[in-house]
Amino acid sequence: MTITDRPVDNGVNVKALLDARDALSAAPEAAEFTWRASCTWRNGTHSHCTVAGFTGLGGEQQHRSTYEFDVDHPECFASEDNGATPVEYVLVGLVGCLTAGVAAVAQHRDIQLRSVTATIEGQMNVLGILGADRDVRNGFGQVTVRFAIDADAPRDDLLALIAQSQKRSAVYDIVTNPTRVLVELA
Amino acid sequence: MTITDRPVDNGVNVKALLDARDALSAAPEAAEFTWRASCTWRNGTHSHCTVAGFTGLGGEQQHRSTYEFDVDHPECFASEDNGATPVEYVLVGLVGCLTAGVAAVAQHRDIQLRSVTATIEGQMNVLGILGADRDVRNGFGQVTVRFAIDADAPRDDLLALIAQSQKRSAVYDIVTNPTRVLVELA
Repeated sequence: MTITDRPVDNGVNVKALLDARDALSAAPEAAEFTWRASCTWRNGTHSHCTVAGFTGLGGEQQHRSTYEFDVDHPECFASEDNGATPVEYVLVGLVGCLTAGVAAVAQHRDIQLRSVTATIEGQMNVLGILGADRDVRNGFGQVTVRFAIDADAPRDDLLALIAQSQKRSAVYDIVTNPTRVLVELA
Repeated sequence: MTITDRPVDNGVNVKALLDARDALSAAPEAAEFTWRASCTWRNGTHSHCTVAGFTGLGGEQQHRSTYEFDVDHPECFASEDNGATPVEYVLVGLVGCLTAGVAAVAQHRDIQLRSVTATIEGQMNVLGILGADRDVRNGFGQVTVRFAIDADAPRDDLLALIAQSQKRSAVYDIVTNPTRVLVELA
């Protein structure tokens, strides 16, 4: 990079993230976050979820808006398709997480992005969720994410970008590794 | 149940699901589904995702509408909070999946639901995603789902409902067990 180049700007404030890393390392209780959603059953397989606030940085935080989501099964499962399916929400979370990571890592590595698109696919044999075959798992057999990145960098640097994004991704970790889930009745 | 009772109706067509189980067991290639999402990076950590179609029952299926989602990080992470965070999408998928399961299992067991609400929380130490502590994972340390169910059934039957819902849930499986994720560059 020469002094006549425009500084790389992918819209990610890397300095703030590095400052946060230092600040939270020094005050680790502030690094404990709790992310939340609320869900109300509507009818059939349809439910309505809201995401409004979370806990972190030692206190209660609010999103700029309350985000609302309808979750349902599709018509081919004899449902009404009032929203995306639960597994599609997981795919949105995973591809959104990896894409944010690509932008953040690119900023940190002085790579100017022009465009990033991705498709994500999760294969599922529904004999699992239908309880028809004990040897078939309920979830995805495999997930594939395909990025297309237009950026001022050679292909090897872009491959390193997506590798580092996986390494720091919360949802990639959630999907690829087991997490303990407690389900309670009030 | 006496013949003067109103039939249980939670809005789930259990007969269609049992018929599908039989039909797909006899034609297992139709049970292979591929769920998809597309993602376009906007700026910073903000991306826009769409969910429109999926493959299953031996062909291409379309949702009734194209579902659109903005994914972003919150302002306290130096981002613009243009949408829910990636991990919140996972929580929405998990709680929506378990809630749909509660309704379906209740229908199958002749339990009339009056209301089902749930809250879901995912604990996360962000020193993991910030790369500040190698011993902290990126994802959730633990997830807790709390159901409140008003239904014509004793508490033990409701506990059995939520247990069976976990057993057949795609997203519960995805979160609690590892899934292989391939990330490719076009």
